[in-house]
Amino acid sequence: MKIGILTGGGDCPGLNAVIRAVVRKSLQNGHDVIGIREGWRGILENNFMTLDLDAISGILPRGGTILGTSRTNVYKVENGEEKVKQNMKDAGIDCLVAIGGEDTLGVASKLYKGGVKVVGVPKTIDNDLNATDYTFGFDTAVNIATEAIDRLHTTAEAHNRVMVVEVMGRHAGWIAVHAGIAGGADVILIPEKPFDLDEVCDVITKRHARGKNFSIVVVSEGAKLKTENNVDKDGSFVLSSMEVDAFGHVKLGGIGNVIAEEIEKRTGFETRATVLGYIQRGGSPTAFDRVLGTRLGVFAADLVDKGEFGYMAALKGKDIVAVKLEEAVGELKTVDLELYKVAETFFG
Amino acid sequence: MKIGILTGGGDCPGLNAVIRAVVRKSLQNGHDVIGIREGWRGILENNFMTLDLDAISGILPRGGTILGTSRTNVYKVENGEEKVKQNMKDAGIDCLVAIGGEDTLGVASKLYKGGVKVVGVPKTIDNDLNATDYTFGFDTAVNIATEAIDRLHTTAEAHNRVMVVEVMGRHAGWIAVHAGIAGGADVILIPEKPFDLDEVCDVITKRHARGKNFSIVVVSEGAKLKTENNVDKDGSFVLSSMEVDAFGHVKLGGIGNVIAEEIEKRTGFETRATVLGYIQRGGSPTAFDRVLGTRLGVFAADLVDKGEFGYMAALKGKDIVAVKLEEAVGELKTVDLELYKVAETFFG
Amino acid sequence: MKIGILTGGGDCPGLNAVIRAVVRKSLQNGHDVIGIREGWRGILENNFMTLDLDAISGILPRGGTILGTSRTNVYKVENGEEKVKQNMKDAGIDCLVAIGGEDTLGVASKLYKGGVKVVGVPKTIDNDLNATDYTFGFDTAVNIATEAIDRLHTTAEAHNRVMVVEVMGRHAGWIAVHAGIAGGADVILIPEKPFDLDEVCDVITKRHARGKNFSIVVVSEGAKLKTENNVDKDGSFVLSSMEVDAFGHVKLGGIGNVIAEEIEKRTGFETRATVLGYIQRGGSPTAFDRVLGTRLGVFAADLVDKGEFGYMAALKGKDIVAVKLEEAVGELKTVDLELYKVAETFFG
Amino acid sequence: MKIGILTGGGDCPGLNAVIRAVVRKSLQNGHDVIGIREGWRGILENNFMTLDLDAISGILPRGGTILGTSRTNVYKVENGEEKVKQNMKDAGIDCLVAIGGEDTLGVASKLYKGGVKVVGVPKTIDNDLNATDYTFGFDTAVNIATEAIDRLHTTAEAHNRVMVVEVMGRHAGWIAVHAGIAGGADVILIPEKPFDLDEVCDVITKRHARGKNFSIVVVSEGAKLKTENNVDKDGSFVLSSMEVDAFGHVKLGGIGNVIAEEIEKRTGFETRATVLGYIQRGGSPTAFDRVLGTRLGVFAADLVDKGEFGYMAALKGKDIVAVKLEEAVGELKTVDLELYKVAETFFG
Repeated sequence: MKIGILTGGGDCPGLNAVIRAVVRKSLQNGHDVIGIREGWRGILENNFMTLDLDAISGILPRGGTILGTSRTNVYKVENGEEKVKQNMKDAGIDCLVAIGGEDTLGVASKLYKGGVKVVGVPKTIDNDLNATDYTFGFDTAVNIATEAIDRLHTTAEAHNRVMVVEVMGRHAGWIAVHAGIAGGADVILIPEKPFDLDEVCDVITKRHARGKNFSIVVVSEGAKLKTENNVDKDGSFVLSSMEVDAFGHVKLGGIGNVIAEEIEKRTGFETRATVLGYIQRGGSPTAFDRVLGTRLGVFAADLVDKGEFGYMAALKGKDIVAVKLEEAVGELKTVDLELYKVAETFFG
Repeated sequence: MKIGILTGGGDCPGLNAVIRAVVRKSLQNGHDVIGIREGWRGILENNFMTLDLDAISGILPRGGTILGTSRTNVYKVENGEEKVKQNMKDAGIDCLVAIGGEDTLGVASKLYKGGVKVVGVPKTIDNDLNATDYTFGFDTAVNIATEAIDRLHTTAEAHNRVMVVEVMGRHAGWIAVHAGIAGGADVILIPEKPFDLDEVCDVITKRHARGKNFSIVVVSEGAKLKTENNVDKDGSFVLSSMEVDAFGHVKLGGIGNVIAEEIEKRTGFETRATVLGYIQRGGSPTAFDRVLGTRLGVFAADLVDKGEFGYMAALKGKDIVAVKLEEAVGELKTVDLELYKVAETFFG
Repeated sequence: MKIGILTGGGDCPGLNAVIRAVVRKSLQNGHDVIGIREGWRGILENNFMTLDLDAISGILPRGGTILGTSRTNVYKVENGEEKVKQNMKDAGIDCLVAIGGEDTLGVASKLYKGGVKVVGVPKTIDNDLNATDYTFGFDTAVNIATEAIDRLHTTAEAHNRVMVVEVMGRHAGWIAVHAGIAGGADVILIPEKPFDLDEVCDVITKRHARGKNFSIVVVSEGAKLKTENNVDKDGSFVLSSMEVDAFGHVKLGGIGNVIAEEIEKRTGFETRATVLGYIQRGGSPTAFDRVLGTRLGVFAADLVDKGEFGYMAALKGKDIVAVKLEEAVGELKTVDLELYKVAETFFG
Repeated sequence: MKIGILTGGGDCPGLNAVIRAVVRKSLQNGHDVIGIREGWRGILENNFMTLDLDAISGILPRGGTILGTSRTNVYKVENGEEKVKQNMKDAGIDCLVAIGGEDTLGVASKLYKGGVKVVGVPKTIDNDLNATDYTFGFDTAVNIATEAIDRLHTTAEAHNRVMVVEVMGRHAGWIAVHAGIAGGADVILIPEKPFDLDEVCDVITKRHARGKNFSIVVVSEGAKLKTENNVDKDGSFVLSSMEVDAFGHVKLGGIGNVIAEEIEKRTGFETRATVLGYIQRGGSPTAFDRVLGTRLGVFAADLVDKGEFGYMAALKGKDIVAVKLEEAVGELKTVDLELYKVAETFFG
């Protein structure tokens, strides 16, 4: 068989580990592999690259993806599905391995229903994908955020400051909770648990009262206010400095900066914000993510070899298993509230 | 209740995370916690320390254990069990949280059968403890080893060398397999799969033949020869340079050095060995190990609070669960051979 | 003698190395050392701490400062100088070691002229202090920024993006130039070389034209537009999205965000900004900064011992030397333009 | 001109930074650059590679050398100098940039006297090359060793152990002294200061007596005993377990292991050794080494462009300057004893 492989959506440490594993295992299984550049766009535009042993040499420890990526959605392009089928046929591509998140796998799932032979590999920094215990890239992001919190701790302590750290997580707070626990956060704000700023300030004030004159607040970019319409109880907070969109997300400046300003105003403690941003998703993957990516890639290659399409390789406990593509998409995996309770043990 | 807490066996990144979590959660549960210094020795010698919020402040990111550790075995001391009971009584200690590996938990299990209220927390760098999916410290060790392999890769490539890396793992090859997969090893030798040096050299020679004139060999300290009595087929290998003990372990110099010498002799390729040693078990834990240690500690504190003794906190899939102490000890958890097959995909 | 020691201004990796060295050496020289908390504020408010061998144990690898810090200026407090003298007398403090930047050493210099026995140790993340080749903390900041740029590179490449990285440097571009060279930046913008956005966009566009469809722009927080009144040539830039203060610094959002927006608008290439912020000044110092801090501290202790006050310990080539405090302050050390030319070799 | 460039001797982080800088600057200066593979061997065997902008893309952060390296000495090959000249002529190579240490630059110096146009760039992990303040690669090695010592500290403390760390430095103790100061070593043993084991044990014993029951001993691989013929005072040490070669270097097992065994025997304290080995010279260079390598490469390219041959680019204070090749070789730069005195401040 001739297998096409692509990476879609935001980049994520471990993508190259998956690509390498799919290629290596598929060659051993007696197939050919061709790289499709820049996600679904590449198959729509016939943009391919050779993937032999030389092409994958030395890529395991590197961040990013040698295939490039994009957010192109086949179903938002006119006759997208037909074009994919035609271009696969023209290029002699028998089947696809699609590595990506909610969107990329959603397309994969639809294509499969439309008759395209496709196997998926789940990918998201945010770890919010259903049907897999953890996604690669997440461990790297959590370690980068934790190291940043470690660094901010010393500054907070030296200056008697409150430090607010904004981490990734638009819809789920996995990075915030893991990095917050690992970094010893005093407050963690996540989309799953809308917050009240007065309660946050209360925790900080009590902490200072017992002699700890610095605090670390970790906040997901998608964290939201508890009160209705995202307006704080006295109505002043949102109106004065915060602009939110229809989903309650801060539009300008980021929630980290907005919260820091408000905490300083309300508590009187010097407060500073740091928005970690893109450094969380770049660079060399951790060992965990390299191993997970490699295992998923080998498993996906074997699914293809056995002709088991319409599935995604997923981590369950210690094992890699196959789950139906349609189960993987549609619903977000939000933070386990038992885990959040563990984090709360250390608040204040 | 007054809870005594101790750490036994080799040190391991994440011990302080567990201690902090047990103390913090137990105080919230309304109990007192007292630190027992240097493992079981501390309770035999009445060597205690105060563990309040101040004592655990700032310890989360630190390696080692603020309690100190030792390999003292209660049951190798005359009237050990009686002394433990008497000293607990004298110090007003109602129950124990014992953090350790096979040996420490073995003592805990026996003490429980003898009537001592005890809860265990599993700990081993080597990840070879039964009844828990992963142990804290392991992820840190794997990352340190992986980073070392990354570094050795560039030297191997620049000099056309074979680099042999000896990692921890006396009875199980978990570190070798994970770091080997993550570091892109060309050969991985583990205790679970006795090896034949000619086969190893064959892989390396074939690799060179296809233009890759460097190789990385990762070897567990407990790796063993395949042939009988640890003598290589032609009888020359062991006799010339290797001295093994009753268990087949190399006594002097380490297996890494011995293998490197033999590979150079047999293949003619320049070969160098690096023994990673103690740097694998020291220093700041990864985020994974901090989160795991914290979750185990909180869970153990709750077991104590609920009066559920004789159990150990364990990781199963994404959850922390209670398993009986006796199930945790007695049998090693060796490397999953499915995982080793994934690693083999990349050999040569 | 009884020596008082304090740290002032922003925190900086290596401060604890200096404190440890001053204490250790001074004790060996037969003196006592007392810690003054939170910079000059501590001597004004009689806020002291004991500094014996126990107090400095284990602090070498830690970021921040065990003494705390503040920006309190003795000469902005009524009768500040008199209070310092009186409080020193009351506490039996014979002389001071002041560790800090422009402001802290400026106060030290005035106090010395006023009759106080004081020795200085230069400190600034920004490396913009005169009379010393390099300051500790700078190497750590540059390494953190470089690692971030390395990470952003993989994202830029995977997404065909321009990544703008804002680093510290309000008045001098040392961090930007060093991290930019080390990270392989395609453009570096510093306060010493006001920039023209069209030229910046031109470099990026030409880079894309030769097949490199990603770019890294490193910008000091204090970088300024070339054209008059900080308005870009066509007048549109500043007015539309940029608010600058009297010194030409962007007031809101940071220059990184503003530039990223403009580059995207002008070139059509997807552009993202990352503001590194406080993570650059926290956490464990590099070996270079620990060695430099230690050497400066030992030297300062010896200056005190020899009664040579009014001096600062400084790095000149490979040596630590004494320079007069008054020479150290008053004029900034801006980026060597030869070094910037080296950086320019790699632009585009 | 057509410029040939080569890297010789042991690999060293920063080599790729130099290569990239020489190529980039020389292209801008209007010349061509050709890569000579595996040091001097490549020019003897006509083993070349193309070096254009593509070839150097992305190599800045990578360890090793894309050119490969060897220890081949032109003057140990029959008619070596003639062959070099002939092969240069045949390949149209006008001049050489040789990056290497004592041996490589020694050959460069002789070739220059023989009429070959050559410019040198100094390289050694060990920092023991004359006529330059620091060499690239050294800072990376020191940071790796320091991080290892940090890790060993926590193990030493948890187990009440003496940890012996063997670092690189056959003839000079630069790495040991810098990493020892940065890591807070209690004893540092270097080739420049032959040691007495009884004195070493005395320091450790006194440390324990004052309540510090762990110690870190950093030892250069080339450290030597103080007493005559490398036999310890009572004659027992060397005879029992140490075999030294004519230069006093330990032949088997490494000095770290030998010393650890003796310290345990003499003091009764549990002692363990770690030999860092090759991880010190591999992997991604620090920012310092990338900047230094880049500056040296740009400078060397300009020397070539100006026709100033027979020189080496060197770091003096903050500047890069030209020094005659003959001054660079012949004499080792040993550890500054003032610096060692700084280190001694923290012994015990």
